[in-house]
Amino acid sequence: MAIKYIHIDYKKELEKAAKQMIFIHHSDTLVKLILRTIVRTLNLEHASLILYDEARDIYVAHTSSGKTGFKIPKGLTKISKDNPVIRYFMSIDPKNSSQGWILFSAIQFSTNPLHKEMRNQFFLYNAKACIPGFFRDKVIFALFLGGKFDGEDFLPEELNFLSVLSSDTVMAIQNAWFFQDLTEQLHKNKRLFLQTVLALSSAIEAKDHYTQGHTERVIQYSLVIALELKVMGKIPRDEKNLFENLRISSLLHDIGKIGIPERILNKNGVLDNDEKKEMNKHPLIGANILKGIDEFQEPILGVKYHHERHDGLGYPEGLKEEQIPLIAQIIAVADAFDAMTTDRSYRKGLTRETAIRIIEDERNKQFNPVIADAFLNACKKGKV
Amino acid sequence: MAIKYIHIDYKKELEKAAKQMIFIHHSDTLVKLILRTIVRTLNLEHASLILYDEARDIYVAHTSSGKTGFKIPKGLTKISKDNPVIRYFMSIDPKNSSQGWILFSAIQFSTNPLHKEMRNQFFLYNAKACIPGFFRDKVIFALFLGGKFDGEDFLPEELNFLSVLSSDTVMAIQNAWFFQDLTEQLHKNKRLFLQTVLALSSAIEAKDHYTQGHTERVIQYSLVIALELKVMGKIPRDEKNLFENLRISSLLHDIGKIGIPERILNKNGVLDNDEKKEMNKHPLIGANILKGIDEFQEPILGVKYHHERHDGLGYPEGLKEEQIPLIAQIIAVADAFDAMTTDRSYRKGLTRETAIRIIEDERNKQFNPVIADAFLNACKKGKV
Repeated sequence: MAIKYIHIDYKKELEKAAKQMIFIHHSDTLVKLILRTIVRTLNLEHASLILYDEARDIYVAHTSSGKTGFKIPKGLTKISKDNPVIRYFMSIDPKNSSQGWILFSAIQFSTNPLHKEMRNQFFLYNAKACIPGFFRDKVIFALFLGGKFDGEDFLPEELNFLSVLSSDTVMAIQNAWFFQDLTEQLHKNKRLFLQTVLALSSAIEAKDHYTQGHTERVIQYSLVIALELKVMGKIPRDEKNLFENLRISSLLHDIGKIGIPERILNKNGVLDNDEKKEMNKHPLIGANILKGIDEFQEPILGVKYHHERHDGLGYPEGLKEEQIPLIAQIIAVADAFDAMTTDRSYRKGLTRETAIRIIEDERNKQFNPVIADAFLNACKKGKV
Repeated sequence: MAIKYIHIDYKKELEKAAKQMIFIHHSDTLVKLILRTIVRTLNLEHASLILYDEARDIYVAHTSSGKTGFKIPKGLTKISKDNPVIRYFMSIDPKNSSQGWILFSAIQFSTNPLHKEMRNQFFLYNAKACIPGFFRDKVIFALFLGGKFDGEDFLPEELNFLSVLSSDTVMAIQNAWFFQDLTEQLHKNKRLFLQTVLALSSAIEAKDHYTQGHTERVIQYSLVIALELKVMGKIPRDEKNLFENLRISSLLHDIGKIGIPERILNKNGVLDNDEKKEMNKHPLIGANILKGIDEFQEPILGVKYHHERHDGLGYPEGLKEEQIPLIAQIIAVADAFDAMTTDRSYRKGLTRETAIRIIEDERNKQFNPVIADAFLNACKKGKV
């Protein structure tokens, strides 16, 4: 009677676990959860699962050690598709996979050559039974069950139940793989986007000989300032996606220089008034280039207003104090620091220390004092 | 006895359907499948499901008409969160959701005001029973079941079973929503990428006054040629992702012009030999700008070689015939056609007909004959 009670219990618990599985979008985590749940609910010494890895076309072993501390020997975690257990499962009809499980006791004394080979696998995983996971006609995994702590044999009923569970597990793993693929594609695309725009802005910088690497440094300084603002608790609640917007905005902040004539961009000396007027159009040109892109409404603010000044003496609109969007206030400090510390054709760059002192002096004049403080804090911490 | 047999059957079939659900990554399709399966296996007159729509914070009705042709009246498919049935389900404990179903017969003569309101909903959906779908404490859907064809009442056992199935359905719907979110993000990012690079290349074109819109047209012509090649069965099997690569490559084909001095780019007349030599560096400059981007190894070939000629007289390397990558052969025709038909400062553009004749004449000379033919076919079909 006690045994029957335990059975109902493990079924319920395993079924419950199976239902949670589809929300785990990482296959390794999923396998860990499954193994741990099986070991715990069936009170096993340990269990191992060898999982197909499509990219490498091999199987990879995962183990839950239970209370025995059983571990798969190092160097044996990568398993060829020619593994005899996999070969055996490939030879059976997946539609009858519920009868596909293998009991060690059934092959223990067999003289069949494949059975002999399989026996070695059972020794390796110290297993009493093995259950396949099929997706269509592919063996997605093989689950090796260690012995029970109470020394009892596996009942066919238990193995049948685990076989049904195994098809749920296959579904969950497939689902996780789909997610991993999509997420990876998403990351790849984001990286591609940043790399491409960076390559293009570097090409623009290449025309403006003395600013090479400027964009990359301004991105870095801007993010450091934002991080410091966060630590200081100075990012307003309604600033959503500040980091993402800042990354894009600082990446594109000088893109408008593409519209500035080369004779001005490359002038070997200080610009005269007319030239300066022309040069100062670059924030508006940049904003104009990007204006058609819906998702860039926030980043455009940084492009357009990164030459505004806290005291209202900047350009293009002479905005002051809180009229200047946060993103632009940040880029303004990052941009100024890099401009000051970089050599130009007609002057050498300032030292880090001098530039820091100027930013300190310009609190409340050129720069918003909170942003300047965030930058100065970051400097003190050696982050700039 | 016959009834019992049917029961086992519907359970198995519904459970099978539930297992397939997690591979359906579109929630509307999923709902359609569920409704159809329930109507068919339980032999219902019809069934409706009102599904939560997070973006709009309302519920939306879906119907499977079964054999009765029942339809929810138009204009009633959007349902407020204040719907009395939803309100009722919100008031019960989701942990006991298996007892959450409502039988019409149980509220038919009730004088409870909420029951009265609920009754109207049952009339509207012509329903005999309603089953909730909970996710945590949220009502994800309400499933309205029409009558059975045999006129029998729903058994508590059936409703309990459908309640369990409903929690599987909730999981599957949540899973589909995750996928829809990810996929949408992916599409958004791709669009963003193309828009941004197009904005930047337009900015480069803005310097080269006479080529405005050139990039967009070359993308379009290139894709038309590739589509025609596909129809002709002339895309080699090992050309994977041709369309994706071609889109990016044609988008970036002139990006190297960013490195050409403005006096050459904007010269008001034919270039002299030295200037031409300088201008002809743009494919290499472009390839160089992009060379650090791993994913662009294929698109770079189009950027680098789109001025090669089939007869080997092109630049930068004088490649000929099959030495020229397919992607570059395609862009070469698209680019030449657009260059010929566009006005320049020192000459008017040729007519469409003259340009087509030139491309015909240049088969086997400037252009690969297969690509030229694909282009000419597309012209005949009015696609260019």
